[in-house]
Amino acid sequence: SETVIKCKAAVAWEPNKPVTIEEIEVAPPEADEVRIKIVATSVCHTDLYHLFEGMHKDGFPVVLGHEAAGIVESVGSGVTEFHLSFTQGDFSNAMSPLRSRLTCKGKKVYQFSGISTFSEYTVVKQINVTKIDPAAPLDKVCLLGCGICTGYGAAVNTAKVEEGSTCAVFGLGAIGLAAVMGCKNAGAKRIIAVDINPDKFEKAKVFGATDFVNPKDHDKPISQVLFEMTNGGVDYSLECVGNVGVMRSALESTIPAWGVSVIVGWTTLHDFSAPPGDLIAGRTWKGTMFGGFKSKDGVPEMVNAYMNKKLMVDEFITDNMTFDQINDAIEMMKHGKCFISRSVV
Amino acid sequence: SETVIKCKAAVAWEPNKPVTIEEIEVAPPEADEVRIKIVATSVCHTDLYHLFEGMHKDGFPVVLGHEAAGIVESVGSGVTEFHLSFTQGDFSNAMSPLRSRLTCKGKKVYQFSGISTFSEYTVVKQINVTKIDPAAPLDKVCLLGCGICTGYGAAVNTAKVEEGSTCAVFGLGAIGLAAVMGCKNAGAKRIIAVDINPDKFEKAKVFGATDFVNPKDHDKPISQVLFEMTNGGVDYSLECVGNVGVMRSALESTIPAWGVSVIVGWTTLHDFSAPPGDLIAGRTWKGTMFGGFKSKDGVPEMVNAYMNKKLMVDEFITDNMTFDQINDAIEMMKHGKCFISRSVV
Repeated sequence: SETVIKCKAAVAWEPNKPVTIEEIEVAPPEADEVRIKIVATSVCHTDLYHLFEGMHKDGFPVVLGHEAAGIVESVGSGVTEFHLSFTQGDFSNAMSPLRSRLTCKGKKVYQFSGISTFSEYTVVKQINVTKIDPAAPLDKVCLLGCGICTGYGAAVNTAKVEEGSTCAVFGLGAIGLAAVMGCKNAGAKRIIAVDINPDKFEKAKVFGATDFVNPKDHDKPISQVLFEMTNGGVDYSLECVGNVGVMRSALESTIPAWGVSVIVGWTTLHDFSAPPGDLIAGRTWKGTMFGGFKSKDGVPEMVNAYMNKKLMVDEFITDNMTFDQINDAIEMMKHGKCFISRSVV
Repeated sequence: SETVIKCKAAVAWEPNKPVTIEEIEVAPPEADEVRIKIVATSVCHTDLYHLFEGMHKDGFPVVLGHEAAGIVESVGSGVTEFHLSFTQGDFSNAMSPLRSRLTCKGKKVYQFSGISTFSEYTVVKQINVTKIDPAAPLDKVCLLGCGICTGYGAAVNTAKVEEGSTCAVFGLGAIGLAAVMGCKNAGAKRIIAVDINPDKFEKAKVFGATDFVNPKDHDKPISQVLFEMTNGGVDYSLECVGNVGVMRSALESTIPAWGVSVIVGWTTLHDFSAPPGDLIAGRTWKGTMFGGFKSKDGVPEMVNAYMNKKLMVDEFITDNMTFDQINDAIEMMKHGKCFISRSVV
């Protein structure tokens, strides 16, 4: 464990370019750090956001990926757990080359969100790792490291969807589908799935959606469409797109006197806005980070729920790919596939 | 009770002009309506908003006033209660001349918010009236018809301020002062009062404020000032101004992980805005109408709290004036006095 590991990783050298598979050096873990053999990782839109939308123009070269499952290879002092999980990082610190344990061709490489799972091995802080049921299939539960927990938790922990309620989910990527599942498991009696891509509706039905609305089919604002469908507005809405216009529509689709709307999608491009009367009428606007779960406890609980067949995970996986196909995976996500799992052999 | 009552009322004939005391005719109450002899009314900024800020340019002539106490003079069918209280009205309907029971010089006169308390008599729907302890001094508890309940309830019902928490109240008009009192009664250990008029701080201290911040004393954003004062942000903030910039400051003054901000001030001039990350970090943005009280139950409860010395009301009253001084009262409020009580003899 004191030795440097040489292994393969997908390095993003600059924005808007394919990543390349390189040999990298992974330093031994220092105090409170864990070196992990990644068994399976998935691609999340947050990775693409960094790569294509210039979140950190200076943050290159970088190894992306923050949602994975693996096996502890070695640990620094005081570390006893065994599973890699996304957790809220301090991006600016996490991106500091001084904090990275990865090098490639003699250069420090940033660790995205302090994690970097698009690699055969990585080193993370122990706070970013949580232990899960050793019987869990890592190529499935890797998805619980970010997106599924985020969407599911947005419904059950943040919105606190109640039994018998009416919900609307805007955007049917993996997070939106997980939000639909959260609404369903919380006992919502009606779940309206909203997306401009009607190809998503079939999958949304699998997760529990009862109604489907394509804004392109309507001339009037979507909030008005939902108002009419529900005789006054939905009890809960979840924005799973990351678009400030959709955020406002989601808010205004809720019933004025007690509607709760949760922002799940992420963007730094624009501010959201709305008239004060939207909230004064009685609505609540919230946001969610990792679905309100504490990852150390939440991820193992979600893994157990999956193992006990209370939670769908397999249904999110559209393709199983090898590490060498990572650019294909990225391209597929760009074009609307949901989650993509791959195995590092 | 079947007769038309002739009495004095303060009629606003057009925007931005003084009101004039006129003789008006008050029709008998129809089904589900109550005719009330107004004993005491106060002036609320919402009245001025209508008069000076063009909320309804077409809504003239009008009798303003919506916060009062009085005695039932006569009732339509099925009415048993005795006290006049503000309640959420449907403005567009309430402003319809067809729904008014007031005329002046042969012309229908609008009833502001369906109420019109700047009159010796008025007719309101029974849903706008609530019965209170007959021992309550009407020239004091008239203030519980709108502003005090709004600010107080914003803290205790909407924000749900918890014991030991840290709060900030932006704007120290009557509503802000009532919000300070709500925070205090809920057990907040620190209440930061924010206003650009430092003359308000003395009064805020009476209601329980512990710290005072004048944004004009600082070069940095007020949210940054409060962040530093509290080592990370307040638990709860209440915007009692009606300014969208202050709304954002109030939101961003709360601690990112669990802060709750409540919009109490009203404006239709602009939309509020903020970056999605403000909410995604874990904050909640809410609004409040009449402080989340149901007026039929809430006003009598608040009157009882006052009678039991659990609630300050007298401290809000800056001046007692006669009905003929109504224009003086309006001018004083325009220039920053809080609440003004008057008696109709």
